[in-house]
Amino acid sequence: MADEVVLLDLKVSPFAARVRIALEEKGITYESKVEDLSNKSSTLLKMNPIHKQIPVLIHNGRPICESMIIVQYIDEVWSHKSSLLPSDPYRRAHARFWADYIDKKIYPIGSNLWATEGEVKESSKKDLIECFKVLEEELGDKPYFGDESFGYIDLALIPFYSLFYTFETLGDLSMVAEFPKLVGWGERCLQKESVSRCLSDQKEVYEVVLQIMKQEPGIQ
Amino acid sequence: MADEVVLLDLKVSPFAARVRIALEEKGITYESKVEDLSNKSSTLLKMNPIHKQIPVLIHNGRPICESMIIVQYIDEVWSHKSSLLPSDPYRRAHARFWADYIDKKIYPIGSNLWATEGEVKESSKKDLIECFKVLEEELGDKPYFGDESFGYIDLALIPFYSLFYTFETLGDLSMVAEFPKLVGWGERCLQKESVSRCLSDQKEVYEVVLQIMKQEPGIQ
Repeated sequence: MADEVVLLDLKVSPFAARVRIALEEKGITYESKVEDLSNKSSTLLKMNPIHKQIPVLIHNGRPICESMIIVQYIDEVWSHKSSLLPSDPYRRAHARFWADYIDKKIYPIGSNLWATEGEVKESSKKDLIECFKVLEEELGDKPYFGDESFGYIDLALIPFYSLFYTFETLGDLSMVAEFPKLVGWGERCLQKESVSRCLSDQKEVYEVVLQIMKQEPGIQ
Repeated sequence: MADEVVLLDLKVSPFAARVRIALEEKGITYESKVEDLSNKSSTLLKMNPIHKQIPVLIHNGRPICESMIIVQYIDEVWSHKSSLLPSDPYRRAHARFWADYIDKKIYPIGSNLWATEGEVKESSKKDLIECFKVLEEELGDKPYFGDESFGYIDLALIPFYSLFYTFETLGDLSMVAEFPKLVGWGERCLQKESVSRCLSDQKEVYEVVLQIMKQEPGIQ
């Protein structure tokens, strides 16, 4: 029996994009079911009763939740092709450390950038710059975070490349001037079909953020 | 050459306790170097320059940071004994999901419970009860979260058993009345030498929390 793979999905979500890229990297055929977050499906509520969030991967009827946990699951089940995590335990720990750093830092800081004004916004901008500086230094002169090939850290971070225009516009900064290596890395990743097929356009994401700002001014 | 294993440690830290239990479970001889967080050692700052936090495991001179990433590293390197994560990918994803849930929920809620007063404190208490209800339901009638044997989820949660008396006292609730299965599970885990050797006494932890509250009233 062929595997049945369903993704509870949302186009502009960086977390869903991670899972789409992992599935593309592995060459797995899947069905994308796009969720309406203002009216969540009974499938989503049943499959992720704890967090009620996308993405959820449903593999032969069983749900797996949380984007980087799903990515590790995909890497372990379809281990024949395109390893995402390195095989060496120390390098695996290193990859997990940076994916965790990205999870803890970028999204919360980014949300504050467009959800707040005044001092909190300024402080978020400062934190975002600090965070990207750390990542730019970690990348250094390597083509990918995973060194010679696209890997786990790259996959964790690349969906946020779609937010670079939003960061620039709302944060009043030039990403290419401040973080030339990260921008070059993003362009390099986009040359991969698995990535370009899964990422949202930067200006389209900015429009979505503007909509959120209009609907919920002052949210945190 | 024998492995050199050093842990940058702190007795009352639940995160450091996770690593100590994993090392005990695997029967690994290690040196514990206790850190003074008000005067962090140059070793800590050098080995964990990003977060500057304990625990850090230093294995043959190379640092690994973040407690559950360290636990996975230990499980992968010393794979001959006491597997902490299951071998099946679906069960591994399930274990990672619950460890992640514990990380995201308990500690931040707990801190709010003793760092705040009034509405925030009441709301933290409500969140804490909700979180333990979810965990009590997930445990159900199994002896351990990992079913028949102590595993990854148990290891992620058990250090917070040392905080149960603090939760009871500051939250004005009875853990055994509200969460009898969780309390029974905690007592069962404590019968394991690997656990009892690594956990702090509940009243000792309460005294430490009282000290923190005196030093930093109103912190969040």
